[in-house]
Amino acid sequence: MTEGSDSFGDIGFSVAVVIGTGLIGASVGCALTKAGVQVHLRDRTLSHARVAESRGAGTVAAPEAAAVDLVVVAVPPLALAGVIEDALATYPRAVVTDVGSVKSGVLDELHGRRADLTRYVGSHPMAGSHHHGPTMARGDLFEDRTWVVTPHQDSSERAVATVHQLVTICHANPEEMESTDHDAAVARVSHLPHLVAVLMAGHLTTVPQSHLSLAGPGLRDVTRVAASDPLLWEQILSANATAVLAELYVISEELDGVISAVGSAPLQPGLRHQLERGVEGTRRIPGKHGAAPVSYIQVVVEIPDAPGALARLFADVADAGVNIEDVSIEHDPVREVGNLALSVTPDQEDSLSVAMRARGWDVQP
Amino acid sequence: MTEGSDSFGDIGFSVAVVIGTGLIGASVGCALTKAGVQVHLRDRTLSHARVAESRGAGTVAAPEAAAVDLVVVAVPPLALAGVIEDALATYPRAVVTDVGSVKSGVLDELHGRRADLTRYVGSHPMAGSHHHGPTMARGDLFEDRTWVVTPHQDSSERAVATVHQLVTICHANPEEMESTDHDAAVARVSHLPHLVAVLMAGHLTTVPQSHLSLAGPGLRDVTRVAASDPLLWEQILSANATAVLAELYVISEELDGVISAVGSAPLQPGLRHQLERGVEGTRRIPGKHGAAPVSYIQVVVEIPDAPGALARLFADVADAGVNIEDVSIEHDPVREVGNLALSVTPDQEDSLSVAMRARGWDVQP
Repeated sequence: MTEGSDSFGDIGFSVAVVIGTGLIGASVGCALTKAGVQVHLRDRTLSHARVAESRGAGTVAAPEAAAVDLVVVAVPPLALAGVIEDALATYPRAVVTDVGSVKSGVLDELHGRRADLTRYVGSHPMAGSHHHGPTMARGDLFEDRTWVVTPHQDSSERAVATVHQLVTICHANPEEMESTDHDAAVARVSHLPHLVAVLMAGHLTTVPQSHLSLAGPGLRDVTRVAASDPLLWEQILSANATAVLAELYVISEELDGVISAVGSAPLQPGLRHQLERGVEGTRRIPGKHGAAPVSYIQVVVEIPDAPGALARLFADVADAGVNIEDVSIEHDPVREVGNLALSVTPDQEDSLSVAMRARGWDVQP
Repeated sequence: MTEGSDSFGDIGFSVAVVIGTGLIGASVGCALTKAGVQVHLRDRTLSHARVAESRGAGTVAAPEAAAVDLVVVAVPPLALAGVIEDALATYPRAVVTDVGSVKSGVLDELHGRRADLTRYVGSHPMAGSHHHGPTMARGDLFEDRTWVVTPHQDSSERAVATVHQLVTICHANPEEMESTDHDAAVARVSHLPHLVAVLMAGHLTTVPQSHLSLAGPGLRDVTRVAASDPLLWEQILSANATAVLAELYVISEELDGVISAVGSAPLQPGLRHQLERGVEGTRRIPGKHGAAPVSYIQVVVEIPDAPGALARLFADVADAGVNIEDVSIEHDPVREVGNLALSVTPDQEDSLSVAMRARGWDVQP
């Protein structure tokens, strides 16, 4: 998509409506507008739509209903089914999608309302921010993020293709999933972690302030997401209650395991096993923007006997122009020497080894 | 402390030994060296002490035992009591402190060994990093951090004063606590949160990779600390097992409350109450470096009716040169206008209001 006006043919749609101009809706509007799509903004609260308009998300002027190709519904979970049904009726040609964080309940509800769902395909961009509302909207919010698309038995090929195009225009990565599979996934990677943070943060209401003054960054990390909007999360969790409950029952059993491991301390294998399982879990989380977890390679340099030389070693590491991810010291008990293990990404291993050898250091093969 | 050599008289000690040259020990060495104290480094693994030396933490040369004024023991929890007892015997005049993260067990153990504890006062700097080992040592690691000092019934006034001086030299803030009170505090703000992160991260080992690909920054936040060294944490948690278990039992009951709240969804008051309790808990955590939680003040500006004017409003906010912490939109249902609520620190409220009024905006009084 290099030039907006040339791309209408490729995009397959030229007029879109965004209903609900919070952070997500307004950011979709910005991305579509940038790509040359004519975007009309609707919000129950006109001032929100106006702010979105001022951020470049589109116009608050009403569209000609028959001209609308795509509707993106970005309203709170409880309102979704009604607004989607209404959009299907109001815009007779439009493909309608929503960006709600739970998918199967809405679909069931729409089936119950006997809506014609050939033009509806749900979706869910895995993006957000602790900011909400249109003032922080930006067209690149979805760049390189996963955006789940959930076709169903009645959705037409055109509808699915149109939602894929929306995702592509927003520079996100489309991933098709069954709606129930999606809901199980977000229960595991988003809703349960949210409740775990809420549990830990809620517990802090019972902790004396003099104890809280010892808190470090770890406590802030664990509890950060619990500061999110309770009204929104009440709706999300209610909409996915069945899948979330299943996870909660498992975590409750796993908590019993942690308790019994701590209770059998010191130094029974149980506690170490729990801690190692935690480390393993953190390693399974993909990197930022859905990239595979990076594994580093260690370049090991022998630490020379003379202390002055070690400062020179660090200087040479810095000079090598290679990005060092971690440094650790390893001791070789047989040869009784110390080794400096420098962690680097696989593509930088060779250049670091070569650079260090060129400067006279003893690099392990 | 402006000049190192002038400050010996004030400091009250001129020769120190640091035993254990990991991140904490080596950083203490750096801070003391910078203040003009002669620091001797000891480590079971000589290469660690050498790396610490190369970072400016002191010398690996042995001190004259009788000349040593202060010993800082920074070894793993299980080794603490033995190394402290040994240090009290080896350095006959020295005040001995340790920087272990659990305090009362070590004290009990030392009492059991019938050591003369007048010269021993435990302490615990609330600082750390996901890095470990001396390569990342820095003299300012403790700057503005809380450093707990735990006097006991046998500790001499001189010993307590010396440890306070150590804390002051490291530019940390000393806080005296009973050792059992300290241990209850860290169980609540550090050890329990660690296990909650371990619980959540451990659960991820059961989640399919296709689901993990939907993970966002929230999941990484909640689980981050679970990536820490299992061997170190096994020792910390074992040393504080009683206090940690007490917290775990409470959190287990609180988890039952969360489960029943989600089970009674949708839209029973229970779930919202849990989520609001979580928000309240996050607000109780002090800001970085132990500062009191900041509360912001909102400056509310009426959003004008003309869309073009709103972009100008944002430009004027930027021009005002005030640091805006958050922006939200409020709707006034009576007057049917929108308002922009700009959150700022209390000291900036006036200058923002004045600046916006000067530019012709309608600011709420």
